[in-house]
Amino acid sequence: MVTVKTPIILVNFKTYIEGTGKNGVKLAKDAEKVNLETGVCFGVAPQYVDIPVIVQSVDIPVFAQHIDPMKPGSYTGHVLPEAVKEAGAAGTLINHSERRLKLADVDAVVARARELSLVSVVCTNNIAVSTSAAALQPDMIAVEPPELIGTGIPVSKAKPEIVTSTVESVRRINPKVVVLCGAGITDGEDVAAAIRLGTQGVLVASGIVKAKNPYKVMLEFAEAVTKR
Amino acid sequence: MVTVKTPIILVNFKTYIEGTGKNGVKLAKDAEKVNLETGVCFGVAPQYVDIPVIVQSVDIPVFAQHIDPMKPGSYTGHVLPEAVKEAGAAGTLINHSERRLKLADVDAVVARARELSLVSVVCTNNIAVSTSAAALQPDMIAVEPPELIGTGIPVSKAKPEIVTSTVESVRRINPKVVVLCGAGITDGEDVAAAIRLGTQGVLVASGIVKAKNPYKVMLEFAEAVTKR
Amino acid sequence: MVTVKTPIILVNFKTYIEGTGKNGVKLAKDAEKVNLETGVCFGVAPQYVDIPVIVQSVDIPVFAQHIDPMKPGSYTGHVLPEAVKEAGAAGTLINHSERRLKLADVDAVVARARELSLVSVVCTNNIAVSTSAAALQPDMIAVEPPELIGTGIPVSKAKPEIVTSTVESVRRINPKVVVLCGAGITDGEDVAAAIRLGTQGVLVASGIVKAKNPYKVMLEFAEAVTKR
Amino acid sequence: MVTVKTPIILVNFKTYIEGTGKNGVKLAKDAEKVNLETGVCFGVAPQYVDIPVIVQSVDIPVFAQHIDPMKPGSYTGHVLPEAVKEAGAAGTLINHSERRLKLADVDAVVARARELSLVSVVCTNNIAVSTSAAALQPDMIAVEPPELIGTGIPVSKAKPEIVTSTVESVRRINPKVVVLCGAGITDGEDVAAAIRLGTQGVLVASGIVKAKNPYKVMLEFAEAVTKR
Repeated sequence: MVTVKTPIILVNFKTYIEGTGKNGVKLAKDAEKVNLETGVCFGVAPQYVDIPVIVQSVDIPVFAQHIDPMKPGSYTGHVLPEAVKEAGAAGTLINHSERRLKLADVDAVVARARELSLVSVVCTNNIAVSTSAAALQPDMIAVEPPELIGTGIPVSKAKPEIVTSTVESVRRINPKVVVLCGAGITDGEDVAAAIRLGTQGVLVASGIVKAKNPYKVMLEFAEAVTKR
Repeated sequence: MVTVKTPIILVNFKTYIEGTGKNGVKLAKDAEKVNLETGVCFGVAPQYVDIPVIVQSVDIPVFAQHIDPMKPGSYTGHVLPEAVKEAGAAGTLINHSERRLKLADVDAVVARARELSLVSVVCTNNIAVSTSAAALQPDMIAVEPPELIGTGIPVSKAKPEIVTSTVESVRRINPKVVVLCGAGITDGEDVAAAIRLGTQGVLVASGIVKAKNPYKVMLEFAEAVTKR
Repeated sequence: MVTVKTPIILVNFKTYIEGTGKNGVKLAKDAEKVNLETGVCFGVAPQYVDIPVIVQSVDIPVFAQHIDPMKPGSYTGHVLPEAVKEAGAAGTLINHSERRLKLADVDAVVARARELSLVSVVCTNNIAVSTSAAALQPDMIAVEPPELIGTGIPVSKAKPEIVTSTVESVRRINPKVVVLCGAGITDGEDVAAAIRLGTQGVLVASGIVKAKNPYKVMLEFAEAVTKR
Repeated sequence: MVTVKTPIILVNFKTYIEGTGKNGVKLAKDAEKVNLETGVCFGVAPQYVDIPVIVQSVDIPVFAQHIDPMKPGSYTGHVLPEAVKEAGAAGTLINHSERRLKLADVDAVVARARELSLVSVVCTNNIAVSTSAAALQPDMIAVEPPELIGTGIPVSKAKPEIVTSTVESVRRINPKVVVLCGAGITDGEDVAAAIRLGTQGVLVASGIVKAKNPYKVMLEFAEAVTKR
């Protein structure tokens, strides 16, 4: 299986048309190309139905955007962790601001991911929630102030103290948890700032998926990571 | 594209392990085999991640178990109708008892399905809700008293009046809506009874997916439909 | 018990501070005053905790803003219809755009309201959903295009065809269902227009609750109803 | 305002008919009587509509069963913290197993309660979630394994290690957080065991509300607390 390494640039395809179906495969191939050229780890989080084809098309880790805490059974329409695993996913986003989970379910989903060796990336909205999430022992936490998502104003510039305090608070609970930051990241300088503030990578969506030339933006991001 | 015809036997794979990944492909191939042997239309509703492989493996209609009403955009973790369509789905279940939707969302999802030429199958729990759903002009309604789901006690026997009244009430609102019934269906006689009560098919899950020999059960179901 | 009559002006206090606690009691007394002066029926829908005091302060019908479908039991934090009834409510809003319910729950709540003789007012967002809701046999339907709520642009002017078509479609399903309209109503002319389009009243919130002089606005509304 | 002291016996009336309306007032008076006789702090958590009358009837702290994170505004059907406060509540349950909240909302509700000086009692289901909740700095945490709720099998006996580990983990995060335990508590011995395991009280529902003689059970509970 492909390995998830840090620093990591994790690209959330959301339900953007630019990341759906064939577009998603193209985007994942661009990410893989940048990974091969720079050695920086890229993860991609396409829609559920696009996971199997992307897994077969590229050699970079593929993430689900969400999984449900269920075990196999009568749960029509839910996202069974086992199905995502069998489809080849390496990990999953959990509790994204567009798909928030109940507290008890964040715990249950992190536990299910651990059980199936899926890398768990819990998204959080502030320092308190990041600390709270760290207590659930996920592999990674991605802090994204929701008010900055999709704005092009990077958290690393607008609210650097949220990033540094999150890193610090999460480390105090569990130093093994990888901290990423997201929201508003659009260029290499934003990525470099995130790394300087103590994160081990970024979670990014529109900045790459909706870019005119996603390959070029991803290359810039990767170079910002390696040059730090 | 494969056509959806009536009478139809629609098999919901839920999140049963027997219908996940490779197991799901095997099950879909069995359904296709029975379709080829009997001419009876079989539809299969696997999990999202299993849709693409199953679409490529068989020539029978594949349904999603749920779609969200969203248009392309920032909806991490949601099920975009366009993605399901591009993956090759012919239709979708909507509002299954294990994935109930808000009234306004049932309307929005049926409209989105129509927009993308996805066959819409709205699941309902009683006569009033079936009538209510019919007003939203879906292609099909599948009435399933939730208290019978998974029991092995078929609605066609336990509550035949729910089936006949649903057929009648739905027809009064819109005679073009196909009515299916579900819950507790395990053998050919249950299927025959459903057809006799005026439905144009059945929605079935554990009765087939968890059967020792799903092929045999599907064959029995198909024969019950043709012999009526 | 106070009677609910048509035409009715139903005032939703939402969670506006101007309609909370003592402010809510004052507002309800103003509504009662206009009712006494003009004979037009006013209903008020305050927050749950304010229902008992308002019921004891005025002689006009008091509505809950929402009830849950539960029967007495283990449902911490839910709104038991029996509790609302015992507190003196005459009816309840159901499925407001800010508190949408699952289709099966709209049905269950309407049934529970009927069981307890609470007047049921189902809120809807368009013609299809209004028709769908009518099939559930509520006492009233209040159609409110969500995009107009709180805008000051009245549905009766911006989208009169939604109002007339809703009235017509609902009548076809069940002529006994009272149809109200809402969203953007701020003056007497908006109310008069709503009545001319065939409704039997209006559902209004900020237009009254956030008015500088709610009494004056309510008087204007009542006169618009009587002068039609 | 009445003070919330520890040890505390917090009685959740749920939506039991035995705790609704006049029954709820009677129950609250019994709790007050035991408080006067023994000095042990009793809190009662009735339904929303019953809060004002109970606040006026007794001199013990009254809790809401849930509040929403909203600020005053357009949130029909939601439970505004300001309204609950103005009605006289001293605090609120948060995230009860029958009314689970999203992680970000638990944080927001705890913050809103703090802002309005409402005592916040976050309910949790296991050690990890209790630790996670402690990071949000609520006043109290009540750990209740959901599988024991309503069973009569007390957590203090069935899973004492959950109680002791929760106390320990919560203290490590924030020693000021009061820890209660709940689920299955029916007699004085269960209460005494909870206190011995390090909690500062219990959260109880059916054990008192559905008892033949709630006064007698509450007296037994209070004596178990004082005799420890």
